[in-house]
Amino acid sequence: MSRYHDLRAECCEANRRLPQLGLVDLTFGNVSVADRAAGVFAIKPSGVDYAALRPDDIVIIDFDGNTVEGTLLASSDTPTHRCLLREFANCEAVVHTHSRHAVAFAQAGRAIPCLGTTHADYFRGDVPVTRPMTPQEINGDYEWETGRVIVERFRSLDPSEIPSVLVHSHGPFCWGPNAAKAVETAQALEIIAQMALHTVFLRPDAAPLSEALLTKHFCRKHGDSAYYGQ
Amino acid sequence: MSRYHDLRAECCEANRRLPQLGLVDLTFGNVSVADRAAGVFAIKPSGVDYAALRPDDIVIIDFDGNTVEGTLLASSDTPTHRCLLREFANCEAVVHTHSRHAVAFAQAGRAIPCLGTTHADYFRGDVPVTRPMTPQEINGDYEWETGRVIVERFRSLDPSEIPSVLVHSHGPFCWGPNAAKAVETAQALEIIAQMALHTVFLRPDAAPLSEALLTKHFCRKHGDSAYYGQ
Amino acid sequence: MSRYHDLRAECCEANRRLPQLGLVDLTFGNVSVADRAAGVFAIKPSGVDYAALRPDDIVIIDFDGNTVEGTLLASSDTPTHRCLLREFANCEAVVHTHSRHAVAFAQAGRAIPCLGTTHADYFRGDVPVTRPMTPQEINGDYEWETGRVIVERFRSLDPSEIPSVLVHSHGPFCWGPNAAKAVETAQALEIIAQMALHTVFLRPDAAPLSEALLTKHFCRKHGDSAYYGQ
Amino acid sequence: MSRYHDLRAECCEANRRLPQLGLVDLTFGNVSVADRAAGVFAIKPSGVDYAALRPDDIVIIDFDGNTVEGTLLASSDTPTHRCLLREFANCEAVVHTHSRHAVAFAQAGRAIPCLGTTHADYFRGDVPVTRPMTPQEINGDYEWETGRVIVERFRSLDPSEIPSVLVHSHGPFCWGPNAAKAVETAQALEIIAQMALHTVFLRPDAAPLSEALLTKHFCRKHGDSAYYGQ
Repeated sequence: MSRYHDLRAECCEANRRLPQLGLVDLTFGNVSVADRAAGVFAIKPSGVDYAALRPDDIVIIDFDGNTVEGTLLASSDTPTHRCLLREFANCEAVVHTHSRHAVAFAQAGRAIPCLGTTHADYFRGDVPVTRPMTPQEINGDYEWETGRVIVERFRSLDPSEIPSVLVHSHGPFCWGPNAAKAVETAQALEIIAQMALHTVFLRPDAAPLSEALLTKHFCRKHGDSAYYGQ
Repeated sequence: MSRYHDLRAECCEANRRLPQLGLVDLTFGNVSVADRAAGVFAIKPSGVDYAALRPDDIVIIDFDGNTVEGTLLASSDTPTHRCLLREFANCEAVVHTHSRHAVAFAQAGRAIPCLGTTHADYFRGDVPVTRPMTPQEINGDYEWETGRVIVERFRSLDPSEIPSVLVHSHGPFCWGPNAAKAVETAQALEIIAQMALHTVFLRPDAAPLSEALLTKHFCRKHGDSAYYGQ
Repeated sequence: MSRYHDLRAECCEANRRLPQLGLVDLTFGNVSVADRAAGVFAIKPSGVDYAALRPDDIVIIDFDGNTVEGTLLASSDTPTHRCLLREFANCEAVVHTHSRHAVAFAQAGRAIPCLGTTHADYFRGDVPVTRPMTPQEINGDYEWETGRVIVERFRSLDPSEIPSVLVHSHGPFCWGPNAAKAVETAQALEIIAQMALHTVFLRPDAAPLSEALLTKHFCRKHGDSAYYGQ
Repeated sequence: MSRYHDLRAECCEANRRLPQLGLVDLTFGNVSVADRAAGVFAIKPSGVDYAALRPDDIVIIDFDGNTVEGTLLASSDTPTHRCLLREFANCEAVVHTHSRHAVAFAQAGRAIPCLGTTHADYFRGDVPVTRPMTPQEINGDYEWETGRVIVERFRSLDPSEIPSVLVHSHGPFCWGPNAAKAVETAQALEIIAQMALHTVFLRPDAAPLSEALLTKHFCRKHGDSAYYGQ
């Protein structure tokens, strides 16, 4: 039995959740999960249907990008996942989707503004959008450079407080301390994107959530003063 | 067997209905139900999945906020429920959701205007939005103060004729004479919010329903002259 | 066995289809079906859940409005159905829903413009909206008067070529030669309402379908020159 | 057994997928598949429910439009399919739907702009809309002329790089190297239409995807340099 048995099972299960939650259509999405002690991460193979995905199909990659185990080709987005797993603190799993409302914001080049407590329960502020990538980046090591522009966008942001980003003209990447939590964040992101789109329609100049309410809701669920949940 | 067996069962069933009706995502919602004779109300525990919820998980609280029975932590929104159950006549159950179109109105700080008979079948007029809460209220006893701004908003409104409110930047609270009816109102609220959003798109200055038609439809289903139903 | 056994079964089945097709929420909808030879029509009882509806629950009414068979109270909308079944040629069944996009047009007081061939496959022109009802009509025999304003709107229209209407501030009534066909028309109406709403968003001054294309598509499915279907 | 057994089965299966994917309502859609060696194509019969469709119901037509096998009447759209199967290189299957967001663009007479990588994964540029048809074309051999205006629109476009079109005031036709791939393209088209509609709402002047990113994503999945999938 593979020493990565549990890691593969966690990764497989999280990938299978994506279409069940309505977050991906066709094969537009993938989840990776790190095992820091083993120096590897697990990721979905490229172009495989979610319903048919089995733990043995999951590919094991090290943090230099070498395939450690697996007979299938890893997702073409693998270098983006690898970049984020390397660079972001408290990021043990990455989820990429093309969920529809989040993509609309990405295509419009607009951050998802923090307009309500639903948003603040998951993100301590706007979900940012990256700058457009340059032709050099696109024609170079594209998927790795995608990770680099995300990291660049977070120079003055804390990825553990804003665990998602919109890649300009593309779509969301989300992360978290494990695969299930990162998938939950991807689900919350799509919900708040839809709510924000409708809010902006009803009031184009809707005010951002007050600092007090943003802090209250975020800290109600996160950090030392959290009092939500069991 | 707990003396609150039936109350817990009613509360559990109503909470489980929320995701089935598409009214809550993740764990964004909760239902409470009062037993006036016993001086208590039942409410969902905090952060527990709806599908896994069992009657024994339901927490029993008295109207001063003390836990009477239950091993789990009650919903963090419990003080808001308690406030409404204490203050509003004919309010025996409270439902809180983050249903998507109702939240869009709440985030935009707009009341849901009464634009049609579907609305008037459930609400005798616009569904109001509270004022934004102050930093003092947010940093104080936040969930209780949430209830207080709702009560403040209803000073000149009858909560039995307008059995819902939008908390500014947050989402809806709904109520009714029992848990099933309060859930039905939460469902109707989301439907009329979606209809209103599309109506406003088609005609930004859409006229409110005429007083005659509003009265006709509301009274067709409510009060002494009701002639709808069996 | 009731002499209206088959009529009741047809009516019951058509009513049960409404929530299955996503055309009604809660109890916002009803279907009636005429038996001209017997001088009666069948209609849904008031406020009964669709899933629980059985043929024996269906109420049989004559064209003067008298209950002929049935122990339950007929739908409060019965006089509207009766009016249309009496006045419109080739109208043997009537469907009333609060389907969401059609209601948005009704609440906005806008006809659904004929913008494409999907529309023209079912309706030979715009789906009209009635004038607002007067306080006298609302406070009088309201549901009968609802039927009268529909009939008034069709003075210069052919109800067999435009088998639906939007009642101002209320919602759609649809009809057809039998219950299944009338339900199909209600389904098509909701679809074209959604398409029209999005079209108007993309091009507020979208041109109506050309007369040639409207005639072509309508006549491809209706009348002597139809060549669609088996 | 029919010599077209496999062709019929492929065609039947692809047609049945359309409502399962939410791409058609009622009977608004059809799939055809060519067998070049046999000089025929298979197509859905007119006005038959998808759920009831069996391989033996599929009609076999030659490229001059003669029925070769089948007892049912072929889809009224058959001449449009025949025209595309004759004229377009690498087009072995054609899918026609009235999917809702794609139809909204067709009714608005607007191409679906290429605003993101989801679009570029399937289409190398905007999905074009045909010119409106003339009364002569509509009143002549309408369905064949529909194919002709599509072919006219592609004079300076490559149908294997832009495997879909919007027929003005009507809806999409999509194609591909086999029935399953053409259905997948029809599914992707509806998704990108919805994303584009919301993007245009968020930023009416949203910039088209950069040439570099368009080329990168399209070529990542298509052609000699593709590296997506297994």
